[in-house]
Amino acid sequence: MTLLDNLEWRYATKKMNGQVVPQEKLQYILEAARLAPSSSGLQPYRVTVVSDKELLQKIKDISFNQSQITDCSHLLVFAAWSDYSPENIAQVFSRTAKERGLPESTMEEYRHFLWNRYEPLGQEWRHNHAARQAYIAFGLAIAAAAEQKIDATPMEGFDPEQLDHLLGLTEQGLKSVVILPLGFREESDWLLPLKKVRTPKEEFVTVVE
Amino acid sequence: MTLLDNLEWRYATKKMNGQVVPQEKLQYILEAARLAPSSSGLQPYRVTVVSDKELLQKIKDISFNQSQITDCSHLLVFAAWSDYSPENIAQVFSRTAKERGLPESTMEEYRHFLWNRYEPLGQEWRHNHAARQAYIAFGLAIAAAAEQKIDATPMEGFDPEQLDHLLGLTEQGLKSVVILPLGFREESDWLLPLKKVRTPKEEFVTVVE
Repeated sequence: MTLLDNLEWRYATKKMNGQVVPQEKLQYILEAARLAPSSSGLQPYRVTVVSDKELLQKIKDISFNQSQITDCSHLLVFAAWSDYSPENIAQVFSRTAKERGLPESTMEEYRHFLWNRYEPLGQEWRHNHAARQAYIAFGLAIAAAAEQKIDATPMEGFDPEQLDHLLGLTEQGLKSVVILPLGFREESDWLLPLKKVRTPKEEFVTVVE
Repeated sequence: MTLLDNLEWRYATKKMNGQVVPQEKLQYILEAARLAPSSSGLQPYRVTVVSDKELLQKIKDISFNQSQITDCSHLLVFAAWSDYSPENIAQVFSRTAKERGLPESTMEEYRHFLWNRYEPLGQEWRHNHAARQAYIAFGLAIAAAAEQKIDATPMEGFDPEQLDHLLGLTEQGLKSVVILPLGFREESDWLLPLKKVRTPKEEFVTVVE
């Protein structure tokens, strides 16, 4: 199956059957998110995996009571850095230089360039920028799940501040931005038989010759 | 090759060789972006494909002079709706209902719920939300390119307002958010032999048992 086949197969599963996703497939999906590209390679986001039933119930309570939260096998919570800082940028660049066997100074000029660009834009802009990067990883996790024939429901309908509190994300300098329950579709799901509808190609794409 | 293999193969190509990407592969990549999921299925983004050499030169001039812009085969410009409105939401929901053979009224309640939720958050929030959705499609385009062994460089280093002007995006209610040159790596690219570095798994993922 190709990526396009997998994207046709997947859908935003509304009803999951509670079956458990094998560890190997879970790890595969997480690895796709980890390998995602991000602006300047900073990966300003993290993923928290929740499978504890009591905690999932609490999350469901702050997520419009959507049943996938408790009927899923694992819930992936994508959280973005609440902010960039000279320190967290330096930390990543330092690791990159080290892993590449390059002197620490290699990326110094770029590091200053980057912070000089980000600093005046303000914290809200910076968090939003980090959040956008998280959505690339989120997209790749969706693609990976579909490849593994694991159902996944992209969801933004939850109270991020309460979720941050429940998972202790604030203390880690993170804010939850989007969540992905993983599991298996219930064949009686009302959405399953409905046609996948997308913006027609001629409207979606403009070609400038 | 699996998605993970493809993600290992790809890298943010710094030097492209000018070779042309076959139409079939270009269309495949665009189709992956089009099939991407988005919040409430609104797909609040569009893709513009640029291959005209003069126009690419102008874009390069407002993109820190990065050579991929003119050495690529096609440049994909991802642009998000500058805003949501009751009208553009209604238009999408109306199409969805129609294509599913359901009465127009099916999604009316949800349409009101959604706008009531978005309206008080303000235009900037709404555009940011649309932009985040665009990044999911962007991620899937990157995965599709890698699958097709087409090189692609995720890029945010350009002047979005000038790009909107060059491509007439403002008039279409769009703002450019991220771009993706497609092409083929030059084997002498300095980044090609360097190790792909990512946040270690144990730092990237937190498991709450």
